[in-house]
Amino acid sequence: MAFLFNSDAARGAIFRQVFARELPDLEFHLSSEGVDPDKVRYLLTWNVPGDLSRFRNLEVLFSIGAGVDQFKPDTVPSHVKLVRMIEDGIIRMMQEYIVLGVLTLHREMLAYREQQRRGLWQALAASQAADRRVGFLGLGMLARAAIDRLRPFQFPLAAWSRSKKAVEGVTCFHGEDQLGNFLERTDILVCLLPLTEQTRGILNAKLFSLLRIGARLLHVGRGPQLDTVALVEALNSGRLAAAMLDVTDPEPLPESHPLWSHPQVIITPHIASVTQPLTAAQSVIENIRRHRAGKDLVGLVDRTLGY
Amino acid sequence: MAFLFNSDAARGAIFRQVFARELPDLEFHLSSEGVDPDKVRYLLTWNVPGDLSRFRNLEVLFSIGAGVDQFKPDTVPSHVKLVRMIEDGIIRMMQEYIVLGVLTLHREMLAYREQQRRGLWQALAASQAADRRVGFLGLGMLARAAIDRLRPFQFPLAAWSRSKKAVEGVTCFHGEDQLGNFLERTDILVCLLPLTEQTRGILNAKLFSLLRIGARLLHVGRGPQLDTVALVEALNSGRLAAAMLDVTDPEPLPESHPLWSHPQVIITPHIASVTQPLTAAQSVIENIRRHRAGKDLVGLVDRTLGY
Repeated sequence: MAFLFNSDAARGAIFRQVFARELPDLEFHLSSEGVDPDKVRYLLTWNVPGDLSRFRNLEVLFSIGAGVDQFKPDTVPSHVKLVRMIEDGIIRMMQEYIVLGVLTLHREMLAYREQQRRGLWQALAASQAADRRVGFLGLGMLARAAIDRLRPFQFPLAAWSRSKKAVEGVTCFHGEDQLGNFLERTDILVCLLPLTEQTRGILNAKLFSLLRIGARLLHVGRGPQLDTVALVEALNSGRLAAAMLDVTDPEPLPESHPLWSHPQVIITPHIASVTQPLTAAQSVIENIRRHRAGKDLVGLVDRTLGY
Repeated sequence: MAFLFNSDAARGAIFRQVFARELPDLEFHLSSEGVDPDKVRYLLTWNVPGDLSRFRNLEVLFSIGAGVDQFKPDTVPSHVKLVRMIEDGIIRMMQEYIVLGVLTLHREMLAYREQQRRGLWQALAASQAADRRVGFLGLGMLARAAIDRLRPFQFPLAAWSRSKKAVEGVTCFHGEDQLGNFLERTDILVCLLPLTEQTRGILNAKLFSLLRIGARLLHVGRGPQLDTVALVEALNSGRLAAAMLDVTDPEPLPESHPLWSHPQVIITPHIASVTQPLTAAQSVIENIRRHRAGKDLVGLVDRTLGY
């Protein structure tokens, strides 16, 4: 019985240490070379390495990231359990990035960046947090964790999700029918949706038109959810006042792309949240123990929903 | 008995409303014209308006801001109580700005701003919050309030103050002797000191040399505390990796000043925290009630310390 780690060597070295201590009975491999494919029960990877069917006894495929949209559904046999990465490091970094992003947009840091470029010292009108309504598209574990950090600042909080959910202190909307009402009350929109066929291109001209004039966008979902042409139009028309993007389409964003130089856009290169090897190894080991004990896995993907 | 409000008309209109409701027996004036100076017991202002001695019965001088360094000590008679502005709006805005600033410096947003300018998509090494030690110069009410918001992120927290203090979860240093030890363990230095003769120029080459290589500065104290020439040298030598400044000397910073264009500097025009008229009026009224009842005033300045 073997665990195959298919990612960078630096993280692999840390995984190997933690596995040796916690699961000494499980063979651990940093490369598929010399490994009997029939022995591989667990595979941790970002992309599917070649043809998965050669691992005939594969039971669990772990994504090294928070999403699984990089896996083409038909490349993962249906009997293989597909698991997203849910670990403390990813959660903490996403909490930081979302609080940073919301405060950046709330406190007019893009306008101040532009004033700095011009050498202009001028205070801008400041909205109070109680008057700045933050809305999350997506209400999974990462959104809830970010909401925990935002709550003390007194922003009115809302969220929209596909299915009905309830979180204390958060006005919850769900389903297509309530999307408009959710957008109408949102000043800072945070997109944390998983990438599925339903969410591809969801941040488009129609959605922007339902936001209030001067709304702001923080995009930490997936690049293909955003129509960048519509974004630039919404910024230029004043519908949106500012956007902060951690994901783009394509990635990396080409050097010549007009988004880079837009004065109302901040871009970071998909760094909001990165799997941390120590906590990730612990999370994967916990899931292997649950799997062996016949328990539900944390982060198990519903293959029909795609997340 | 009269209250004289000496600031902008927009805030004055709100003060007038709240005073009319809460203290209807107190004459309220938005201008000294036509007011019998002998009647003025309370004055709210930023700068001293002319010669204070004409208000012979003045009992309390309220600063409209969090600091009182704008008052020359010899212009305020020693029997007049001098009070700093402590109100919820100032506190909330400072909490926001400090969390924004610490996360901006922690998450390498200055380096990413520079990469965006060049159209470069490149992830940088990310330190975890548990490895990023935040240190406050100054441990008054605003620092404590900011610490409350930072605590959940798991940054190791420390503070240095003139006199000995204790705050839960914060490693506290005090006095000249312990300044070096405090700086040595600090990765992100937040300056929230009041401006006094002791703190003027405190952020200088010697202080920077006691920080670790690659430390970061968030300056929300007062402009004259910072030696900008030493700051630029510390940034260029690599001693400091980045600085975010809300206060400068002089203010406004002239358009031609080299700090504006430094790639490792973010400048905002003294907007971290601005007195909010509604909550400020309530705070001043509460202090007038305390004064009338012979109680201690909130924010009373120790004239020998200057804060």
